[in-house]
Amino acid sequence: MAAASPLLATALADIAADIDRAFDALLPVPADGRARLYEAMRYAAIGGGKRMRPLLVAAGCGLFNIDRARALRAGLAVECIHVYSLIHDDLPCMDDDDLRRGKPTLHRAFDECTAVLAGDSLHALAFEILADEATHEDPFVRSELVVELARASGPAGMAGGQMIDLIAGENTLDLPAVTRLQQLKTGALIGWCLEAAAIMGRTPPEGRAGLRGYARDVGLAFQIADDLLDHEGSEERAGKRVGKDAAAGKGTFVSLLGPERTRQQAEALVEQAIDHLRPYGEEADLLRAVARFAVARDH
Amino acid sequence: MAAASPLLATALADIAADIDRAFDALLPVPADGRARLYEAMRYAAIGGGKRMRPLLVAAGCGLFNIDRARALRAGLAVECIHVYSLIHDDLPCMDDDDLRRGKPTLHRAFDECTAVLAGDSLHALAFEILADEATHEDPFVRSELVVELARASGPAGMAGGQMIDLIAGENTLDLPAVTRLQQLKTGALIGWCLEAAAIMGRTPPEGRAGLRGYARDVGLAFQIADDLLDHEGSEERAGKRVGKDAAAGKGTFVSLLGPERTRQQAEALVEQAIDHLRPYGEEADLLRAVARFAVARDH
Repeated sequence: MAAASPLLATALADIAADIDRAFDALLPVPADGRARLYEAMRYAAIGGGKRMRPLLVAAGCGLFNIDRARALRAGLAVECIHVYSLIHDDLPCMDDDDLRRGKPTLHRAFDECTAVLAGDSLHALAFEILADEATHEDPFVRSELVVELARASGPAGMAGGQMIDLIAGENTLDLPAVTRLQQLKTGALIGWCLEAAAIMGRTPPEGRAGLRGYARDVGLAFQIADDLLDHEGSEERAGKRVGKDAAAGKGTFVSLLGPERTRQQAEALVEQAIDHLRPYGEEADLLRAVARFAVARDH
Repeated sequence: MAAASPLLATALADIAADIDRAFDALLPVPADGRARLYEAMRYAAIGGGKRMRPLLVAAGCGLFNIDRARALRAGLAVECIHVYSLIHDDLPCMDDDDLRRGKPTLHRAFDECTAVLAGDSLHALAFEILADEATHEDPFVRSELVVELARASGPAGMAGGQMIDLIAGENTLDLPAVTRLQQLKTGALIGWCLEAAAIMGRTPPEGRAGLRGYARDVGLAFQIADDLLDHEGSEERAGKRVGKDAAAGKGTFVSLLGPERTRQQAEALVEQAIDHLRPYGEEADLLRAVARFAVARDH
């Protein structure tokens, strides 16, 4: 297993710079009482994370020759959702985390009420960005992007997954239950990234099976790799608290399968994900590289 | 000053029943770990509140002969936003309230993390409802509804107003500052209700000045009336804690103007709001009745 390929390394650097620039332009600090709110949003949104979701949107859009500026807007929207979910998940009443992306969590650096409001604000911004005509000239496309992102992030998707995770408490989940939890909590949003590319590329729903399969397998592979990182890793490398799922007695892929079978499972998922891309030629190479990156040791 | 007119009383009863029915259909409790989340959303969303925002949408849509089912969907979306904002505002880290709409607040009846997630879930649902083709056949209309609702509820609107309110702390705000705070915190969302009617009725932006003026004046009149209720009222009548703004030493319309001038100010705003409806005939009677209701004593 290796680090990111040169193709992927360039793409990761480019998307990180583009997303930071976009957040910077989107969030000028106003000269009134809302300044603290915007500063908090900037603190959480700028300069952190792998930007894997925007990268997936951009790589998916690459299959359909979609203008990069538009792919970036859709990527920015899903990153807004991702960042808001991290802010709220880190709150004392939720996972109570102090460290995120290598720095204090937002409620530690600011305070809890600012963190709640900054999360809510990024949540709203996601839909404002997506529904704006700069994202796509066809309002039908914009509406579909909004409906699907709301579904993926709401109670039938990400928020529902977080609820299941929280009530699991100290009950050990079995493998189907852990898989289902992760498909809601992280898989739905990753699924949206590829769905968004297909929607913007005007692929009819019946032509989206390959991309959906790819997203499902890659999403799960990343989650399994996270479990392995949590099992083996250090806080320094992860930029967040590690070992907490095991400490909480929760079922994880590693605790259920052991590290060796977990790694094999992740690798099988990556092969399966790449297999879904067979209809696509070399323009899907970046998506293939992203899939392989899921099981690279040092991300 | 009087109770609701017969026209308004019927409209209020109808919209309350319609919104409750819509939430009930929208939120069936799933037979999995998300059950608690859906039960929490139902607890907060069903059977409470005056449904003033959906009523404003419906009354506005009445000017443009828009199908009631569609007006209700837009009303349901804005009510989702309103309910989510109440849930999050009541949290211990925010206003720390125990009573809402006459019953324990959501985090009291359930717990804090469920309350955060239920708020987030209703937030996402608002946009899912709005962007769905059942809300309007024209995707351009749906996209515009989404952009405007996101702006009204996000950091440039409601969430920004809540931030200003929270950092005001014990500083006494002056009248322009209180007015600005309320225009963001509650006025922006009320403004959306009439804007939504104009958008669905395909009124171009230059034809919306009257409805915007009406919304601005009515929104402020309701807020001023709430201050009076907070000053004079009982918890039993309000269904929530009263007197807290005064106790916190915050500037309110009553503390800045005194109760008598505050009441005069509210009445002047109502007259001004009604004046904005001059271009419309008797189909605007419900909007006129809503405006008068703002200063009725017993709501």
